[in-house]
Amino acid sequence: MQVLIVHCHPEPSSFNAALTQIAVETLEGLGHQVEVADLYAEGFDPVEGPGHFETRRDDERFAPLDEQRHAVESASLPADVQREITRLERSDLVILQFPLWWHAQPAMLKGWFDRVFVYGGLYSGRMRYDRGRLRGKRVLCSVTTGSPAPAFSRDGRGGDIAALMWPIHYSLYYVGLEVLPPQLNYGIQGGGLSYQSETTFRDQLEADKARWASRLKSLDDDTPIAFAGWDDWDEDGVLKPEHPARWRP
Amino acid sequence: MQVLIVHCHPEPSSFNAALTQIAVETLEGLGHQVEVADLYAEGFDPVEGPGHFETRRDDERFAPLDEQRHAVESASLPADVQREITRLERSDLVILQFPLWWHAQPAMLKGWFDRVFVYGGLYSGRMRYDRGRLRGKRVLCSVTTGSPAPAFSRDGRGGDIAALMWPIHYSLYYVGLEVLPPQLNYGIQGGGLSYQSETTFRDQLEADKARWASRLKSLDDDTPIAFAGWDDWDEDGVLKPEHPARWRP
Repeated sequence: MQVLIVHCHPEPSSFNAALTQIAVETLEGLGHQVEVADLYAEGFDPVEGPGHFETRRDDERFAPLDEQRHAVESASLPADVQREITRLERSDLVILQFPLWWHAQPAMLKGWFDRVFVYGGLYSGRMRYDRGRLRGKRVLCSVTTGSPAPAFSRDGRGGDIAALMWPIHYSLYYVGLEVLPPQLNYGIQGGGLSYQSETTFRDQLEADKARWASRLKSLDDDTPIAFAGWDDWDEDGVLKPEHPARWRP
Repeated sequence: MQVLIVHCHPEPSSFNAALTQIAVETLEGLGHQVEVADLYAEGFDPVEGPGHFETRRDDERFAPLDEQRHAVESASLPADVQREITRLERSDLVILQFPLWWHAQPAMLKGWFDRVFVYGGLYSGRMRYDRGRLRGKRVLCSVTTGSPAPAFSRDGRGGDIAALMWPIHYSLYYVGLEVLPPQLNYGIQGGGLSYQSETTFRDQLEADKARWASRLKSLDDDTPIAFAGWDDWDEDGVLKPEHPARWRP
């Protein structure tokens, strides 16, 4: 199996980096090929804009989707975007490793979605959801949060983690990926926000690492998150009445 | 009233730009002071990282929240971050104008959250939610989407718009802002994804502009979105049983 780990954290000695390292060692130990896209280390530019397109479809007015499609059709995609697409295309499993910042992925990773999931290439009006370009491949988000688990429960102060992950998961499903349940690491302290003793915290980090390594060895047992698909929607893109609302946050 | 419009779109002639222009003209016409933070035009850097901090608390290991708090305490915040905080502090109303990209705000605007909402400055463990630093101020998201309205209904193919906006709205509430219902502009075509005739589309854009100008004249009638607050949570940060779950997506 070919695995792509999209790693997003500015600090090489962070807990996120440790989790990525564990994934590399564990998966390679299982005989898989692992590639890491270290967005910060590679200096990925997450800001979609006119400067990325050498040969514009319209030099006067920048319409992101028009230029993305034009770049695909004229084989003139930005080099970094083409590199990420190539990495995705040769992968069977994609792991996104990132900290939850402001109830979502950091800007660096959000921009990876904005720029790499190009219109006309990774999706189109017909090539979306269960007819998506990357169907058949699986994706897994490995996330760290600052607040502890209770804050992210259904009635938690930090927000229901299922609701916070939903826009990210749905975007991944949009390009056809099978989304595995996320690996959640709660209460990864930062900014001196201490929720427990230092010793307890160290033990927790080790337990989180072991839990991650263990899960990576049994990914085949995972069942992807169920989303509705084309057969479930009417011509207006609304779920047919008889269909159970499986995919809601 | 002092108004700050945080404008996020790469194209100066975009429909988003037209909506921002209408907001400036309408609000100034009402006698308000309006300032526009044009993130793309100002070249805002949305990527939080070590390079932004001149005097580090820890030169070896970059912990974002630790460095943010240290920068606040040592009055050494990055110039662009300090500028945005100053803009926020002198405002009574903040308007975020942006297109919905991949079920969230564009990376440029997401990074504005990541970098400007600094720990130790705009929030802390005690200074959050209804005890947030910016309480008393209001915020309104004016959003454009590519797909038409039905796709963003509760059972829509594009995802329930309330669920997609929730992480953004909750982040704004986290720093104490009163979040007004979003101004939603659906079906703003891009990438040749045409959902209706060109004439009908032009009429819709004009109707959207008029609807925006009209709403801006009656903002005092708006009721902020209701979120739970400190009195509603137990010591674990979970909603007390007797409390109605008002804030869920």
